[in-house]
Amino acid sequence: MIGVLGGGQLARMLALAGYPLGLNFIVLDPAEGVCSASLAHQLKGAYDDKVLLARLAEKVDVVTYEFENVPAESVAFLADKVAIYPPRQALATAQDRLTEKTACRDLGIDTAPFVAVNSLADLQAAMDKVGWPAVLKTRREGYDGKGQAVLRQPEDLAEGWRAIGEVPAIVEGFVSFDREISMIAVRSCSGETAFYPLTENEHQGGILRVSIARPNDAMQGLAEEYAAKVLNKLNYVGVLALELFQAGDRLLVNEFAPRVHNSGHWTQDGAVTCQFENHLRAILGLPLGATDIVGYAGMVNLIGEIPDSKAVLAINSARLHLYDKKPRAGRKVGHINLMNQEQTAFETDFQAVLGLVADCHGIGK
Amino acid sequence: MIGVLGGGQLARMLALAGYPLGLNFIVLDPAEGVCSASLAHQLKGAYDDKVLLARLAEKVDVVTYEFENVPAESVAFLADKVAIYPPRQALATAQDRLTEKTACRDLGIDTAPFVAVNSLADLQAAMDKVGWPAVLKTRREGYDGKGQAVLRQPEDLAEGWRAIGEVPAIVEGFVSFDREISMIAVRSCSGETAFYPLTENEHQGGILRVSIARPNDAMQGLAEEYAAKVLNKLNYVGVLALELFQAGDRLLVNEFAPRVHNSGHWTQDGAVTCQFENHLRAILGLPLGATDIVGYAGMVNLIGEIPDSKAVLAINSARLHLYDKKPRAGRKVGHINLMNQEQTAFETDFQAVLGLVADCHGIGK
Repeated sequence: MIGVLGGGQLARMLALAGYPLGLNFIVLDPAEGVCSASLAHQLKGAYDDKVLLARLAEKVDVVTYEFENVPAESVAFLADKVAIYPPRQALATAQDRLTEKTACRDLGIDTAPFVAVNSLADLQAAMDKVGWPAVLKTRREGYDGKGQAVLRQPEDLAEGWRAIGEVPAIVEGFVSFDREISMIAVRSCSGETAFYPLTENEHQGGILRVSIARPNDAMQGLAEEYAAKVLNKLNYVGVLALELFQAGDRLLVNEFAPRVHNSGHWTQDGAVTCQFENHLRAILGLPLGATDIVGYAGMVNLIGEIPDSKAVLAINSARLHLYDKKPRAGRKVGHINLMNQEQTAFETDFQAVLGLVADCHGIGK
Repeated sequence: MIGVLGGGQLARMLALAGYPLGLNFIVLDPAEGVCSASLAHQLKGAYDDKVLLARLAEKVDVVTYEFENVPAESVAFLADKVAIYPPRQALATAQDRLTEKTACRDLGIDTAPFVAVNSLADLQAAMDKVGWPAVLKTRREGYDGKGQAVLRQPEDLAEGWRAIGEVPAIVEGFVSFDREISMIAVRSCSGETAFYPLTENEHQGGILRVSIARPNDAMQGLAEEYAAKVLNKLNYVGVLALELFQAGDRLLVNEFAPRVHNSGHWTQDGAVTCQFENHLRAILGLPLGATDIVGYAGMVNLIGEIPDSKAVLAINSARLHLYDKKPRAGRKVGHINLMNQEQTAFETDFQAVLGLVADCHGIGK
């Protein structure tokens, strides 16, 4: 029995991948009508409800989570009672932009220039090191959108510092990048690692819109090297998504997510073993499955709206993945995967899908 | 919402294939602890319980079934209230060996010689037409294993007739065949049809053990022609499995199953769209998905025993599918799918899987 903190679409897809392995699922989530409800038993309550956490620990063999803002105390509480993966220390590192970036730098992994900032004076001093323009980011998330401020000129500093709530932060120099990519990597509790082909991502309004994975990306080797360093340093267990910017032949780590990731959804149909199954294999100490790409693969997110199913399914290589969520603005309600051994056929179908998806104008061109 | 009569592994795999399409499931099954229980709401009761059938009809958009011995009265009762696919008439034809075989013969589809038998005198007269040896089969199943008798010599006739319970039957001439194959075909309620690559099957003790699907089987065209005739004649909707014997360049229809079929399980990993998803697309009037094979694909049934998961998952292209059923002798508890674009790699993995599966000696060689 697998316990999952969070009962959203990632938990849903973990369960769908886990049933064929003979697994069953319990999710802990405070929300009514979570989209994994038909696929898992739900413990309904707060993520820091000790009674529920204890009940969860009692019923499962291992706990994992589908979002990175799990309260650290809950993780500590669970870790005393049951295996919880990805491990506590990895989560703690990922939850704090400063420790995350510092860990990368210490491993010799390229990042944008960054400096820790604990006061307006710190910020003023830091600008010499990171250069203009820059972006000020709270070390921890969850401040209701008040987490980031762009700094273009000296007058922005005081305002930016106020805007992020005057909390511990980092300031990062802007990077002019060619593309955003991500590396979905996995490490099992036996130490075995595996890496998926690199995924190229396009965002709009801060939300991932499309991913494409092609065979033999020139940056694959370097990205695997970076991911392996992070996985091994953190004694990581599970799937980790490393978000990267490519600038020329440099790869800069932006951040990493200690969980299955939206930019890895294409693996459900485009890889031999999907990220969800490999995450489960990893946390259960089972051999990892092959991560080979079947050909060209891609994913288009459905955000706020579900296109006509008939039109989607009429596209030869389109695979529909709905989350059983009511559409509303900005909400991820599903995705469409595409895969094809032939590049031209892949691109034709990809454009056909984009044509059906609202709000994707200018994307994927 | 989809209703399924029967809550076993076929219902379980229909549900797993249906969730990504945004569907939800209710199963009707009298058994405790059915293996689709975590994936579907179960109405627990007899298949002829009118109260439950009415409740099912009220809650779902369409009803389907996972076994062919659904009581005809229940189907009729449901058909008055809700769409039920495969259609009533197709089910009735498949439930009676005489109507099934006659329908094939009337369509110009080759079968073993057969004659209807309603008495011992009929049987004696029929032997001239079908020849020795022959097999006597009840027209309808469900007589607790008393359904078949092999006839090798005149003295077997009276005994065979008694052994099958002296009920309406057919007697069939033996066919000396080269291989057993099946055609998984699908027709949607819009009339669209699709055909999977032929599957070669091996049985042992009357139970399917392994299936292999290879690209470009020489008999593909004829098998599709036969399947298309049956689908269109029966105004069929859903997946239909046509079981065939190949003898030289002849294909003889043995029987057809009006449902998703064990010999089509390889499509979960070896075809673009699996039989379960295409069955759902068909009964919902959605466009059918591509049935192309990805390379070489196969399936090995797990019967009565589950091999060590770690050993299975260590085989590169092996995909484990467990049914969450307690192993006991003769019980199908799961299957392992294999697929590979390369024939040699496929065969190596196939032999590795057979080596892990109990009771498979001499199979798949």
